[in-house]
Amino acid sequence: MKKILFFLSLSLLMISCNEKQEKPIDDNQLTAEEKSDSTNIKTFFNTALTNGKSYEWLRDLTQNVGGRLSGSPEAQMAVEWGEKVMNEVGLDSIWLQPVMVPHWVRGEKEIATYTTNGVQKNVAICALGFSVATPNSGVLAEVIEVKSLEEAEALGDKMKDKIVFFNRPFDNTLIHTFKAYGGCVDQRVRGAAICGKFGAKGVIVRSMTNSIDDFPHTGTMSYGDLPAEQHIPAAAISSLAAENLSKDLISNPNLKFYFKQNCETLPDAPSFNVVGEIRGSETPENIFVVGGHLDSWDLGEGAHDDGTGVVQSLEVAYLFKKNNIKPKNTIRIVFFMNEENGTRGAKKYAELATLNKENHIGGLESDSGGHTPRGFSIDANSANTTLLQSWKKLLSPYGLHDIEKGGSGADISPLKDENVTLVGYRPDSQRYFDYHHTSRDTFDKVNKRELELGSASMASIVYLMDKYLYGDTPVKL
Amino acid sequence: MKKILFFLSLSLLMISCNEKQEKPIDDNQLTAEEKSDSTNIKTFFNTALTNGKSYEWLRDLTQNVGGRLSGSPEAQMAVEWGEKVMNEVGLDSIWLQPVMVPHWVRGEKEIATYTTNGVQKNVAICALGFSVATPNSGVLAEVIEVKSLEEAEALGDKMKDKIVFFNRPFDNTLIHTFKAYGGCVDQRVRGAAICGKFGAKGVIVRSMTNSIDDFPHTGTMSYGDLPAEQHIPAAAISSLAAENLSKDLISNPNLKFYFKQNCETLPDAPSFNVVGEIRGSETPENIFVVGGHLDSWDLGEGAHDDGTGVVQSLEVAYLFKKNNIKPKNTIRIVFFMNEENGTRGAKKYAELATLNKENHIGGLESDSGGHTPRGFSIDANSANTTLLQSWKKLLSPYGLHDIEKGGSGADISPLKDENVTLVGYRPDSQRYFDYHHTSRDTFDKVNKRELELGSASMASIVYLMDKYLYGDTPVKL
Repeated sequence: MKKILFFLSLSLLMISCNEKQEKPIDDNQLTAEEKSDSTNIKTFFNTALTNGKSYEWLRDLTQNVGGRLSGSPEAQMAVEWGEKVMNEVGLDSIWLQPVMVPHWVRGEKEIATYTTNGVQKNVAICALGFSVATPNSGVLAEVIEVKSLEEAEALGDKMKDKIVFFNRPFDNTLIHTFKAYGGCVDQRVRGAAICGKFGAKGVIVRSMTNSIDDFPHTGTMSYGDLPAEQHIPAAAISSLAAENLSKDLISNPNLKFYFKQNCETLPDAPSFNVVGEIRGSETPENIFVVGGHLDSWDLGEGAHDDGTGVVQSLEVAYLFKKNNIKPKNTIRIVFFMNEENGTRGAKKYAELATLNKENHIGGLESDSGGHTPRGFSIDANSANTTLLQSWKKLLSPYGLHDIEKGGSGADISPLKDENVTLVGYRPDSQRYFDYHHTSRDTFDKVNKRELELGSASMASIVYLMDKYLYGDTPVKL
Repeated sequence: MKKILFFLSLSLLMISCNEKQEKPIDDNQLTAEEKSDSTNIKTFFNTALTNGKSYEWLRDLTQNVGGRLSGSPEAQMAVEWGEKVMNEVGLDSIWLQPVMVPHWVRGEKEIATYTTNGVQKNVAICALGFSVATPNSGVLAEVIEVKSLEEAEALGDKMKDKIVFFNRPFDNTLIHTFKAYGGCVDQRVRGAAICGKFGAKGVIVRSMTNSIDDFPHTGTMSYGDLPAEQHIPAAAISSLAAENLSKDLISNPNLKFYFKQNCETLPDAPSFNVVGEIRGSETPENIFVVGGHLDSWDLGEGAHDDGTGVVQSLEVAYLFKKNNIKPKNTIRIVFFMNEENGTRGAKKYAELATLNKENHIGGLESDSGGHTPRGFSIDANSANTTLLQSWKKLLSPYGLHDIEKGGSGADISPLKDENVTLVGYRPDSQRYFDYHHTSRDTFDKVNKRELELGSASMASIVYLMDKYLYGDTPVKL
């Protein structure tokens, strides 16, 4: 009986294992050339998953440098760190591109509070990037809740001396969370510009997240062409605080909200893009850019945004070198500075590319987090888009199914041209806005395998682009 | 200039948002019937993502009941919890299926240590399920490291009075982590049966995980038909401890390893499967089973294994009822007892199905964690496999690309028959073995959206199976 049970339990165990078998590519469906590509792609994945460097690089960047907002001492440390790790990989050449960047500082931790029904509530807030400070005594005012810029604009003079509270939540029914972000972020970026015009005392904006929690999400804002005297302080409040405030405003519409923040925009500061390359073996004048951004918001450690993109980009070069796979064209790794509040690094990079008459044939950016791979978004002409989509059978065994037309990324998009093939790496997005621009964006939120699979995914598409894309036409900027 | 910068930054922002646009199904590619299906599927996802219940159910089960090994008071609490939540959903009928289950208890926390080069090292271990205890004084012996059952068997009498250390790691190059698990778990299940035969004093087995960390992973083992006097204690040691011990054995091959554990197998205990159903509107005699397992290992909270499968299964019923979508056939939700160490609940369920001449036409199991959806594994005849794969265009917008032939799950596979279509839900597996069977398998590791997307994915395939699969032939068990 025991023996029967033993084999029964073993056979159940085997069912349980067999059911989860690896599905290799059916070699019979591949041409000889595709088999060779398939082998090289497998090599990238094997190396990343067994000898990857990205996770330890990320640990170093996030835990020893930490948050690294443009202009900060940490951003300068990150530049030095970037040179160091590029040297470790042994790139053919490494240099810094000087660029002046905005220098906004948060100052002391923000505070916010209101009292309703005799109960004082402390509210989790943080200043938005580029916001002015409140007066030293803070701002105390009644609150008007709105769901859109249009609704705010329609208030006109009614918002004078009030705090305007933007509270349109993410549409959680959208499967791709970046779409929900795109549907809300106008409140954060433009809210203060609209309300400053009508004499509001400040704006508070519901945090950009799918979840209900008590972490405020910072991010950039702009006063547009509003005169300086109309600039009003702008803060993000946590989604939980937004829900509570909205309820409290129903029972107590005249409650007064208080907040105080101490942020300041200092004069522009010198900084750098960090650049390194593997020189092409056949047509080194043709360049593929692979990059992420080195700066991050100050609240967390800049792990998923965008430490992961930085270390994955460098790991692309490492995977080529470690496996002695020599690209025909030049693979250039760029750690862009200042994506978060200005994209000055991206602009400088494109400006120099024009100035130096460089021939960019393509680019790949990783700035959507370091979660498990899902695919790529392609910003290219139809022929090249079709070509990239034809690689699905080589890429889908690695979970790379979503290979669709779309944008690439903020740092490489200034290179956009009919003949330049730009690609954005697209990992799974479900958890991304739990961490984005908050104190929770820390190293421990990144999974080693997910990160490494991303590096190998990126190396694979760079390998295919290097081999099969032609880049005869110089980029026209 | 400021205005230019404002619009430039806005346009960059828009690029950054547009590039991540939701890609809806192209309606022109769908038949009228498929459009209706597409609408219902979207409804499942919208409801799960905005009014889902699974996350709060999971919080309750994991945090108020906790780990719930078969035969424990917590397992009985989980049964009562199961009845309660099924009642909340308002299923047409709810009942318990009595089943006798193994009752193994861990006892006091295990300890393990060894001394090398004058340094005493404490080792993270845990007893394997069904293992005997060590003597009260523990086991102290020299260690022989092996990488496989074959290597152990070949040692023969050389292992007498020794501790055999099974140290074959996961193959991290396998993209699907369950495959790596399948390639190692024989060491855990059968190691002690082989070594007990030759008079070893105990076995210690490297934890079943992709990562290097200090958490021991428990799991079931078996002595097979070995006489009781040859049963030797079996423990898992953390992957980090395994790496260190392996190194220390090189410099100090005669080091003595000590461990002590206090576990015990008590007489079988009474327990239950919890069952509830929505009665079919047209052919209620045809049954689809949807389930996960209610029991869990004792070390954590049984969150990903398999609290998520339990709450997702119930959410399938909730999504049908909430949206007033009436299945033609009966949808039966089952919380199986004792998947982890015996699958007695599964066997009892299948036995009763035969006894009661029930006509099962299909089943769906969720027991691979609660991470982001990837697809389904199909265990069915060719015609039905092809039919399920034809639904890819309806399912792929939700990240469900991997719809392949394979196994289903340990709890529904006893229903296997040529005419029964069994399906396993397959979420992303990259992080799963970071938590599996450890103290880390806790509620906080589950992401709300990922969990809810899984529920809706499951409801969608049940909806399609209910509508399009015919089940004229009774199940033959």
